[in-house]
Amino acid sequence: MRTLLFKSLFALLLLANAAFAADPLPSWNDTGAKKAIEAFVENVTKDGSPDFVPVAERIATFDNDGTLWSEQPLYFEYIFALDRLRALAPQHPEWKTEQPFAAALNGDLKGALAGGEPAVARILAVTHAGMTPEEFDQIVRDWIANARHPKTGRLYTEMVYQPMLELLTYLRANGFKTFIVSGGEIEFIRAWSEQIYGVPPEQVVGSSVKTKFELRGDQPVLTRLPQIDFVSDNAGKPVAISSHIGRRPIAAFGNSDGDLQMLQWTTAGRGARFALLVHHTDSAREWAYDRRSPIGRLDKALDAAQAKGWTVVDMKNDWKVIYPYEMK
Amino acid sequence: MRTLLFKSLFALLLLANAAFAADPLPSWNDTGAKKAIEAFVENVTKDGSPDFVPVAERIATFDNDGTLWSEQPLYFEYIFALDRLRALAPQHPEWKTEQPFAAALNGDLKGALAGGEPAVARILAVTHAGMTPEEFDQIVRDWIANARHPKTGRLYTEMVYQPMLELLTYLRANGFKTFIVSGGEIEFIRAWSEQIYGVPPEQVVGSSVKTKFELRGDQPVLTRLPQIDFVSDNAGKPVAISSHIGRRPIAAFGNSDGDLQMLQWTTAGRGARFALLVHHTDSAREWAYDRRSPIGRLDKALDAAQAKGWTVVDMKNDWKVIYPYEMK
Repeated sequence: MRTLLFKSLFALLLLANAAFAADPLPSWNDTGAKKAIEAFVENVTKDGSPDFVPVAERIATFDNDGTLWSEQPLYFEYIFALDRLRALAPQHPEWKTEQPFAAALNGDLKGALAGGEPAVARILAVTHAGMTPEEFDQIVRDWIANARHPKTGRLYTEMVYQPMLELLTYLRANGFKTFIVSGGEIEFIRAWSEQIYGVPPEQVVGSSVKTKFELRGDQPVLTRLPQIDFVSDNAGKPVAISSHIGRRPIAAFGNSDGDLQMLQWTTAGRGARFALLVHHTDSAREWAYDRRSPIGRLDKALDAAQAKGWTVVDMKNDWKVIYPYEMK
Repeated sequence: MRTLLFKSLFALLLLANAAFAADPLPSWNDTGAKKAIEAFVENVTKDGSPDFVPVAERIATFDNDGTLWSEQPLYFEYIFALDRLRALAPQHPEWKTEQPFAAALNGDLKGALAGGEPAVARILAVTHAGMTPEEFDQIVRDWIANARHPKTGRLYTEMVYQPMLELLTYLRANGFKTFIVSGGEIEFIRAWSEQIYGVPPEQVVGSSVKTKFELRGDQPVLTRLPQIDFVSDNAGKPVAISSHIGRRPIAAFGNSDGDLQMLQWTTAGRGARFALLVHHTDSAREWAYDRRSPIGRLDKALDAAQAKGWTVVDMKNDWKVIYPYEMK
């Protein structure tokens, strides 16, 4: 009796949903990419489909930079780090002559990044560590609520892709659990992912710094240490997915060579699988870049997509709208 | 309109649930522990309560060994590892003279564990690594479906605590997301946690081995390496929670000193918090042990519970039933 009642109510909910959801992806043109997405979702969710996947196994993973929001002229998290350096500089007079800080503070990004990954790690250490996770969360929240993009003058969270927001919602409405799997620092994204993407902190996977627990007097405290714990990029993405999610996704979404291994691993699983790359082809409404871009390079993954038949979004032709604010 | 319709249907579902759920914790005696649990849940879920917590923040974390299932005479995962050693021994004639393997294969557990953590790590390396996560999952599934406990003759998954199963269900019915945070190896638990506890792999946190991604020809493969990546015990528990969940729990459940820091960190958060320790006091129906037990030692955490007013379950007096099979 109880089961029956629940089933009836649940069926009503589904019906109500179907009746109102005319086009779940209104910002997508009726081109191949949209059709491929809809065909996949129908294929894995339709009762009786040979490729039917139970709800619990409907895991979809999304890269963040360049896949869910823009990443030019620099990963937005790098801009956050540079802003943070500027805020901390008065307490660090030694940075005036010390690299990579001196270059970064002079706005010489090329110079600051010339030291490669060790330079990035040094900047990360002073901008992302030395505080509790709660304090870092507040620092990011303050920045994301106020900082503005140098080209558009918009908040960074206004520069998320409207078609991808619709895609996240569409997948969740079809029983998918949506995860972010980013090369960005995990707590940086968690500070705003729930509000902007509807993805709660526990469904965010990313790079991380080591964290220490200690009792200060009677008070338990976690501290973010200035040491990189894990880099969730390239081969690190499938490893991070295995660690955090413990299941292979059935669908994965990316935009660069850093997502290649995630897409390879996802599509190598049994049954129906879906892989999609966002190809930045719209220099007027966003940016156009691929094989030679220092940020968001899409080269090997583009070749793999062609060889494997993965879906490639041509932003210029497949998306009616890029940013939510274009709709107002 | 759409929102209203959904809200009405959802309210109906909740009503239906309330009408049929007379006593959500029938295996708990009406003692202080049960009353404390119910009072906490009402306090954080009741509309208008000053301690109301939004659904998204209702995170509850559970230790596994000794909290959700038994852990005597040895952690069940250790028994798995010893069984696995025996299965692999024919391919490793050198183990006949090599410690800790020789002792373990002779059933001399004390001898095998005499080497302390390095000995455990060596056994873990050969029993838990050298295969893909999918292969390990299958090994654990085969073992858990067949191996039997030396004292009860039952499957290990029959030795879960009926009152704790009810508690997991009760919390989820009240909008909580339930996580396991175990010192045990994460994939060992994931292989059966969804079926037994209703906790999906992505809500299991545990100790882990390092994992490597590689392409074998065209085939992407993850391999579990014989190196410990992270130990999710003691101070490692709050660190692992911060990394995997990204939110501080509002309720935490444990049974030993290995859970102390998780309970400290959980209860130090703002607003209403709940901490519970399962105290093994029933030598007839289960086991009785605490301050001096080599497995599941409950000493400092018991003192902390008394000092802080945490809820302590007296298994003998608070639980009507220990195992689900007692009910048949």
